[in-house]
Amino acid sequence: MGFWKAWFSNPEAITTAKNTFVEEEKINAKANKKNVGNHIIFSTEREIDLYQLEELCDAVGWSRRPLRKVKKAIEHSFLVVSMWQVQNTQKHLIGFARATSDHAFNATIWDVVVHPKFQGKGLGKVLMQYILKQLRSEEISNVTLFADPDVVEFYQSLGFMPDPEGIKGMFWYPH
Amino acid sequence: MGFWKAWFSNPEAITTAKNTFVEEEKINAKANKKNVGNHIIFSTEREIDLYQLEELCDAVGWSRRPLRKVKKAIEHSFLVVSMWQVQNTQKHLIGFARATSDHAFNATIWDVVVHPKFQGKGLGKVLMQYILKQLRSEEISNVTLFADPDVVEFYQSLGFMPDPEGIKGMFWYPH
Ligand SMILES: CC(C)(COP(=O)(O)OP(=O)(O)OC[C@H]1O[C@@H](n2cnc3c(N)ncnc32)[C@H](O)[C@@H]1OP(=O)(O)O)[C@@H](O)C(=O)NCCC(=O)NCCS
Ligand SMILES: CC(C)(COP(=O)(O)OP(=O)(O)OC[C@H]1O[C@@H](n2cnc3c(N)ncnc32)[C@H](O)[C@@H]1OP(=O)(O)O)[C@@H](O)C(=O)NCCC(=O)NCCS
Repeated sequence: MGFWKAWFSNPEAITTAKNTFVEEEKINAKANKKNVGNHIIFSTEREIDLYQLEELCDAVGWSRRPLRKVKKAIEHSFLVVSMWQVQNTQKHLIGFARATSDHAFNATIWDVVVHPKFQGKGLGKVLMQYILKQLRSEEISNVTLFADPDVVEFYQSLGFMPDPEGIKGMFWYPH
Repeated sequence: MGFWKAWFSNPEAITTAKNTFVEEEKINAKANKKNVGNHIIFSTEREIDLYQLEELCDAVGWSRRPLRKVKKAIEHSFLVVSMWQVQNTQKHLIGFARATSDHAFNATIWDVVVHPKFQGKGLGKVLMQYILKQLRSEEISNVTLFADPDVVEFYQSLGFMPDPEGIKGMFWYPH
């Protein structure tokens, strides 16, 4: 049974299952105060429809990536967070983020995205707070990311610091 | 049988075993031209004596970390590279680096260290070239790291770029 079907037939079982559909009271209350219609929920479930994810990434203009590699990346991420709009029995993927980690000291957040229709309503912030809360609960003490210039302020508003004590993010690409 | 013991009793078996002791002809030739005495070899074996690793990190002045967490971090790193000086049947850990990854797109390199006695001889460069070669062979196309201000030049000499296209490395610590 798909996790979504299970959610409707037996919500309690799902809410308490580890790493399945997680509904965080406080976070959801916050998200739902934003008045985006219906109901927003968060999940750490990895079984995401890759075509829906591709659509979401298309919507913000990201270049396409082979689905085989996206699947592998999701499998090997430490944490995968998705954000859904629920309308009756339908769910729509409206946000996504994931993190790689050594499960001990460091985590690095990648692919943070909110669907353009839902941007500017505070949902990106709630999504990030959700992922940070999850990482903290795993005792990760050093959370990092690489921010495009136009979203540095967004992450700063969440407490991220650029180049603390002169530490530089660096990139290497194969020639 | 420990991998080192195995190495001496049957070097061929070990050289070809995946993820066991790896001796890379070219890399080793390069390292050994540096005239640091005896023989230098590289390994991607994870079973590293944590006390030796702690000693190495102490030697460069890094603050101590709980061995339980170091063990977990090594287990959950995508790639762990160590560099050893071989003298007769003794081996000494003289360098280390590891990488987290989603196994598909990104890898992030952490904890790069060469023992002070062996610094400035080109071994850090060879260690980094070794880890980059391994990551390339896994089709990772985006290799990142966070460099302290005084080692930015070291990584630049290896082809790493700071803040490419204005992308900023950012950090978040729990309050
Ligand atoms: C970046 C992104 C995830 C933000 O999501 P969002 O839902 O629009 O953000 P929010 O509405 O929660 O904004 C939270 C705060 O950040 C600010 N903010 C949001 N986007 C910002 C931006 N691009 N630049 C500066 N500030 C920004 C908001 O003004 C708000 O500030 P406030 O708390 O003072 O009101 C979203 O715009 C997006 O998906 N963009 C395209 C993909 C992308 O660039 N991802 C990041 C890759 S590094
Ligand atoms: C940084 C470190 C790994 C470099 O290893 P190393 O074996 O001394 O480096 P190499 O001898 O291979 O140097 C390679 C090149 O980088 C340069 N280089 C080395 N260390 C440098 C430094 N700190 N700043 C600027 N350039 C440096 C060398 O001059 C050399 O240049 P060349 O190729 O033009 O001759 C080592 O110094 C070390 O372990 N430092 C302490 C721990 C640390 O700071 N790690 C990095 C954490 S982000």
